[in-house]
Amino acid sequence: MTTIHDVVVVGGGLAGLSAGRSLRNAGIDAVVVEARDRVGGKSYTAHTDYGDVVEYGGQWVGADQEHVLSLIDAFDIDTRPQYDDGAVVSRVAGQRYVEPTYMDALRALPGESGSELLAAFEEIARCIKQIPGARPQNAPHADEWDAMTLQTWIDQQFETPEAQAAFERMIPGIYTADPSDISFLFFCYYARTAGGFHMVAGLDEEEDSHTDVVVDVQSIAQSVADELGDAVHCGHPVTRIEQDDDSVRVQTPERTYTASYVVVAVPPTLAGRIDYEPALPAARDELMQRMPNGTVVKCHVRYVDPFWRDSGFSGLVEDDVGPVNYFFDDGHPDGETGRLVGFICGSNAREWADKSTDERRVAVIDQLVSLFDDDRFDTPIDYLDQSWPSDPYSRGAYHGYPTPGTMTACWDAIREPVGRIHWAGAETATRWYGHMDGAIRSGRRAADEIQFKRSA
Amino acid sequence: MTTIHDVVVVGGGLAGLSAGRSLRNAGIDAVVVEARDRVGGKSYTAHTDYGDVVEYGGQWVGADQEHVLSLIDAFDIDTRPQYDDGAVVSRVAGQRYVEPTYMDALRALPGESGSELLAAFEEIARCIKQIPGARPQNAPHADEWDAMTLQTWIDQQFETPEAQAAFERMIPGIYTADPSDISFLFFCYYARTAGGFHMVAGLDEEEDSHTDVVVDVQSIAQSVADELGDAVHCGHPVTRIEQDDDSVRVQTPERTYTASYVVVAVPPTLAGRIDYEPALPAARDELMQRMPNGTVVKCHVRYVDPFWRDSGFSGLVEDDVGPVNYFFDDGHPDGETGRLVGFICGSNAREWADKSTDERRVAVIDQLVSLFDDDRFDTPIDYLDQSWPSDPYSRGAYHGYPTPGTMTACWDAIREPVGRIHWAGAETATRWYGHMDGAIRSGRRAADEIQFKRSA
Repeated sequence: MTTIHDVVVVGGGLAGLSAGRSLRNAGIDAVVVEARDRVGGKSYTAHTDYGDVVEYGGQWVGADQEHVLSLIDAFDIDTRPQYDDGAVVSRVAGQRYVEPTYMDALRALPGESGSELLAAFEEIARCIKQIPGARPQNAPHADEWDAMTLQTWIDQQFETPEAQAAFERMIPGIYTADPSDISFLFFCYYARTAGGFHMVAGLDEEEDSHTDVVVDVQSIAQSVADELGDAVHCGHPVTRIEQDDDSVRVQTPERTYTASYVVVAVPPTLAGRIDYEPALPAARDELMQRMPNGTVVKCHVRYVDPFWRDSGFSGLVEDDVGPVNYFFDDGHPDGETGRLVGFICGSNAREWADKSTDERRVAVIDQLVSLFDDDRFDTPIDYLDQSWPSDPYSRGAYHGYPTPGTMTACWDAIREPVGRIHWAGAETATRWYGHMDGAIRSGRRAADEIQFKRSA
Repeated sequence: MTTIHDVVVVGGGLAGLSAGRSLRNAGIDAVVVEARDRVGGKSYTAHTDYGDVVEYGGQWVGADQEHVLSLIDAFDIDTRPQYDDGAVVSRVAGQRYVEPTYMDALRALPGESGSELLAAFEEIARCIKQIPGARPQNAPHADEWDAMTLQTWIDQQFETPEAQAAFERMIPGIYTADPSDISFLFFCYYARTAGGFHMVAGLDEEEDSHTDVVVDVQSIAQSVADELGDAVHCGHPVTRIEQDDDSVRVQTPERTYTASYVVVAVPPTLAGRIDYEPALPAARDELMQRMPNGTVVKCHVRYVDPFWRDSGFSGLVEDDVGPVNYFFDDGHPDGETGRLVGFICGSNAREWADKSTDERRVAVIDQLVSLFDDDRFDTPIDYLDQSWPSDPYSRGAYHGYPTPGTMTACWDAIREPVGRIHWAGAETATRWYGHMDGAIRSGRRAADEIQFKRSA
């Protein structure tokens, strides 16, 4: 079966759906072709039979994420404040701290290490200011910063082991990669696209990093899909894209789509697994080879009630023992079910991704008992998780990252169209890289490119 | 069309053919399925209509590469000595040197830089001794060395800019990656599999690094394929591998092969582009995401005669201006056609891979005129090249490399079978990683694994 359209969008996550929506709003016949039997990609919500809503993927939005907020507003989707009333538990190099706020926990590090950590944040802010927004490969120190891992920068920056451990412990939860895996240039660029490191690190004394929890995140994607109606085709994994002077043909096992343009709105490493005819330019192919996805397993633990709140805990935990790197209280501020959400990231995720949910359940619950020194954590009413690296249509999360040397070598290709092929996805965003907001921006930007071409 | 066999081997390069040969010699019904219309992979020979033999891929063999030498011997394939009589031209940071030998050129660096370079080679030798042969991730300093790029090690090691420039200039030609792209751990491991850095760097005062040129390299692969006869199926790109408790099914557009086992004998980044059912474990998938191929364009320039020999040049050139990083005299020691072979590597290859052969011809010939300060280089009789990153069935060469952090994160998966799937290819070799010899060893090792399983 072959159908003919103006534009085919590959991928029904927020990037692809946003591209499709922008194009259709401009009167262009676009279809969105999605491999899974659902839309939303890594915005993925489950509804349990006892009435709970579980977010397996993205779930937070920030005050300046205007693109995702515009969709939340347009579709009248609920958000709620992130619960953060109470003490923060952190464990650094085996030492457990309980402090009023996250920043207090950092300041409470022994000796000079607290102030050393704050000085490092200031140094990072100075470096980030030097990164051009759209072309980080043109930063004054781009070659130097891309040729060193974040670990090397850390080793050179820190003098006290406690400050270094505290900083290193922050990285996997933010980047879903370890300090050895990314360059200092990407470290800075990613944070820059979010408005600064404090924005992604949740350094919560900075007001602009305020975030809300979206209730049923997937309803954002689903609402766009509902609006697009028959223009969204689920269950059709794209295997091949052929283009010539006249058109582009997008193949799936059951259908072939013919169009004038295609928007590929999947992470670069998955885009690389599509068969292209003619073959893509070497620079584009190399970029896709050098942008693996991060590794993260997202865990949910549910209790009858949020009893830790009565003990004075906010539920925010940062831990370098693991398996979970971070926990948050994921519940309504006014109580109801006790909800904790945890992220197993980077090297921890590598250790746990291929294990069973049952094995992870035991380890995560043991970790909670130990972190809070409270046996009540031993009896949850439910445990659910999602191993993103194991998911064949994601193969990792939160996003793809360029390996050291890649931004200076190949970043010119990240958004550069190849003939009739345009690229979207949260990795192409110059604001909120890797976030839902960045994904939506990227789809809108790719749609703009095609509208411009059609009008030219 | 479906055919049934004991083993299907994916990839008709030296790894896959060697696996097929070992299996069939053991009485096992193995077929080798190759995407291209030829065997040999990156051992690829062209015959010009004026009778010249042109090696687009691998062409040298070393005295201790017993596996490739055993095939060369078995099939009575010719080799000839590498011509090396005469002066070496090198250009470091714009300064041109003409010295009797390559080591002399290194020693001739100004001031302390020559001795500093030799001291660095000794330090590398000390580090390499600490790398376990089969499990580099278990080296005493594995975490530290994998978390730093080679560039960082260089920055810490060298004090004189000339020694640093000379060392940096050596890397792309050996690793087909820049010092920013690989970790110090992989740098050491790769060299270790070859017997030391002097073996891969051609530090030619060490007798054991002696190499010969194979005449018609592809005839090695072709001879194995001829022996295998109908068991080699060219023109069938594998798109999907399904396995269950009973069997494995290997799909190509025109045929499906059913077997008990499959050997995937293609580079990791291309293995990652096959669709697997069930999905591969996260650790294996992540490894394939984190092993891009190197970037290299191999160039051949042909002259009526090797006139540079009469001027006292060996034809060996090392240049950090480019586009070519290295030239060698590729001709018979007793004369005939003048033959120079050059390698455009790493960042140079990125700049030139997507350009036309005509554009590269002009730049390479200009480079030769300038390097030798001799206008006779301006009038070749032929220029040919192969852009491996542009080749859809290779997408880079000489081999895949793990990015920083990858060996300590994922290297357990490099040879670990996944159910009925076994892995071969030069990246899996613990001797001569990335070389023809390593490819052959890897195929034989994968065949051994399957024989062992069948006999168990």
